[in-house]
Amino acid sequence: MMDYKSSIHNSIKNNRLKGINLLKKLVLEESTQGKETSAQAIIIEKCRELSLKIDIWEPGGNQLFNHSAFVSPRSNFAGSPNVVAVLQGTGGGRSMILNGHIDVVPEGNPDQWKEDPYSGLIKDGKLFGRGSTDMKGGNVALLLAIEAIIQTGIKLKGDVIFQSVIEEESGGAGTLAAILRGYQADGAIIPEPTNMRIFPKQQGSLWFRLFVQGRSAHGGTRYEGVSALEKSMIVIKAILDLEKERNENITDPLYHGIPIPVPINIGTIKGGSWPSSVPDSIVMEGRMGVIPEETVEQAKNMFETALGQIGEEDNWFEEHPIVVEWWGARWIPGMIAENHELLTSLKTAYNQVLNKEPVIEASPWGTDAGLLTRVGNIPSVVFGPGTTEVAHFPNEYIELERMFDCAEIIALTLIDWCGVSD
Amino acid sequence: MMDYKSSIHNSIKNNRLKGINLLKKLVLEESTQGKETSAQAIIIEKCRELSLKIDIWEPGGNQLFNHSAFVSPRSNFAGSPNVVAVLQGTGGGRSMILNGHIDVVPEGNPDQWKEDPYSGLIKDGKLFGRGSTDMKGGNVALLLAIEAIIQTGIKLKGDVIFQSVIEEESGGAGTLAAILRGYQADGAIIPEPTNMRIFPKQQGSLWFRLFVQGRSAHGGTRYEGVSALEKSMIVIKAILDLEKERNENITDPLYHGIPIPVPINIGTIKGGSWPSSVPDSIVMEGRMGVIPEETVEQAKNMFETALGQIGEEDNWFEEHPIVVEWWGARWIPGMIAENHELLTSLKTAYNQVLNKEPVIEASPWGTDAGLLTRVGNIPSVVFGPGTTEVAHFPNEYIELERMFDCAEIIALTLIDWCGVSD
Repeated sequence: MMDYKSSIHNSIKNNRLKGINLLKKLVLEESTQGKETSAQAIIIEKCRELSLKIDIWEPGGNQLFNHSAFVSPRSNFAGSPNVVAVLQGTGGGRSMILNGHIDVVPEGNPDQWKEDPYSGLIKDGKLFGRGSTDMKGGNVALLLAIEAIIQTGIKLKGDVIFQSVIEEESGGAGTLAAILRGYQADGAIIPEPTNMRIFPKQQGSLWFRLFVQGRSAHGGTRYEGVSALEKSMIVIKAILDLEKERNENITDPLYHGIPIPVPINIGTIKGGSWPSSVPDSIVMEGRMGVIPEETVEQAKNMFETALGQIGEEDNWFEEHPIVVEWWGARWIPGMIAENHELLTSLKTAYNQVLNKEPVIEASPWGTDAGLLTRVGNIPSVVFGPGTTEVAHFPNEYIELERMFDCAEIIALTLIDWCGVSD
Repeated sequence: MMDYKSSIHNSIKNNRLKGINLLKKLVLEESTQGKETSAQAIIIEKCRELSLKIDIWEPGGNQLFNHSAFVSPRSNFAGSPNVVAVLQGTGGGRSMILNGHIDVVPEGNPDQWKEDPYSGLIKDGKLFGRGSTDMKGGNVALLLAIEAIIQTGIKLKGDVIFQSVIEEESGGAGTLAAILRGYQADGAIIPEPTNMRIFPKQQGSLWFRLFVQGRSAHGGTRYEGVSALEKSMIVIKAILDLEKERNENITDPLYHGIPIPVPINIGTIKGGSWPSSVPDSIVMEGRMGVIPEETVEQAKNMFETALGQIGEEDNWFEEHPIVVEWWGARWIPGMIAENHELLTSLKTAYNQVLNKEPVIEASPWGTDAGLLTRVGNIPSVVFGPGTTEVAHFPNEYIELERMFDCAEIIALTLIDWCGVSD
């Protein structure tokens, strides 16, 4: 592998400007849910330039919509194509999926952005804009890695299957569709924004909505009512206790130093309709982390059981049970073994490029790696150049230097994993 | 007074149908804020029929708008007249204001009503509709009382000043305008829906809005943020503690048996924008009861001090203080002495009509009696036929029998209080 190190490095170095321009073009396209076409067109153009074998399709069909792992608020994906582009190997090597999502989360309140949310502005070595870090910069790193291998004249034995998918931010229908279309491989890398840390384990996550009931009354005689807000305080306390209990049992060293490895977050609350009335209804929405070793169903059961038990301490809840709704996005957890060769290969390449040991951790959020691992049976690892802290936030950016480092590491990993034909 | 009891009783008995029709006509008019004209027109028609001296005006002017007790979301009252109608006395007696508001609170969700909210339907001795209990039934009782005195041929010495005011539900700008127009009296009765209890004390109330800050973060790394909801739980606890502390000091026997004499109610809560983000802002709205013996300013100070002290236990609040906004409606508390002759007069009349002792309590909510007492220096008492529990609620109704009893009691009170000319 050392033989190829400098030629890969030089190729990526020569392509820096092209890479930055590609990322800028991608960030300029607001590829929020349902608007992915233009950004995918840029990806397709690049894959054609690289002479990859391209497959473009709009996900759909009963097999997808009826799949137990399918989750999406959409009932059709017209105008939202998946793109898969294959660099075919000469045969006899291990194949690799390089998976990145093209969809981005909405920009939120534009007033919180210093520049236009889709500016692609470059400043101090950073490129700004929604999607720069999560995860178009990662996707560009994948394409730079493939381009470097092609330009260096290396013939890989195994196939490299580049996937630019839709719907990751809503639970992974795009990656599920790619699995169901038959794309298989011996390993997969997803360059989500990990701050260049390697995540061999990914926690899953579930969205919940809770309905807590009260009984209305005039505020001046509030003792005649039952405040849904005061009852909600008991519910919040029960959720904090459950989170504590679940996390106390997590001893995995990959979570070492993380205050709450698999959090339960209450993100929104709303209730009551008049300042001077006792609120008779509160709705809370949140996100429950799924431990890599557990199933989505186990997590749900634990949550529902904990809330059900509140009734044992407070009669009100027996007569007015908390209603739990699982809705919106859901990410299946995923993991590969500590000593998996994919991890070894990636760690070695990291060391070669950056001359240091990578940080190996468990991810604090779900990715499409859960689907690839558990549904596709494809050992997957998450490793990417984006900055974790700014993903989903205003003034999102990526440090461009990291994008090139990541491209180099992935190129060397591909060479080791897929093997080189003589 | 006993001489007049049976003639007053008979007059009201003979006018039952007229009284019911008057109430029905009033309920059919949706006199929510800004739409009071048609209902006032019915009142004016009735007062003309009784040959009262009528004064009609739209409140306004700098004296009103700049008054320290003025509160209203409106900046002009065009199309919302106050009506005052005087039954002039022969002289030498005590005068009495009979004050009722014509405005009603909105009907809320019509789906929660069995009938049209402004149906005026009569069933099982009840008349249904928004405003029936709060407080058009009370107003009709006042007019029936005046009519009975006129029909019986009694000449009162003191003036009876009937006031049909706007804006009570928003803090009393209508009654304040009547005070500022110069209407004075030796006593006042307001027939708010008290379930025929007599309230010589009325707690005031204030609306507040609280802003609690947090710091956002991804739900999967929620430990990097600060949940405004968890911080709000501390705020709610502090408010409950403050309510407890304030109420432990209330020893007035008029509050005997009332679980929380002067409650603080949190009526609404809203915050957070995404299930999987740590909420960085929570807004709560509520209603603080003002103890009859304290001023509005004292209540505000106590509230703000209590919330300010949270910072001593939790640094977060020192750097991110809770913002308190006093907004919306406000009712000044009011009270008269236990042995005030107005109370004696009313109790005696009650006993004569119903052959039992009335329940004397302190009110759980604010009324215009606070303004009459504290701004107008007019000793005031609240006593009316409406059903407390259904005021401001769907399917509001009044028990018609109570309306007639109330009319009789008020007529006898007027005879005693104002005196009869030979």
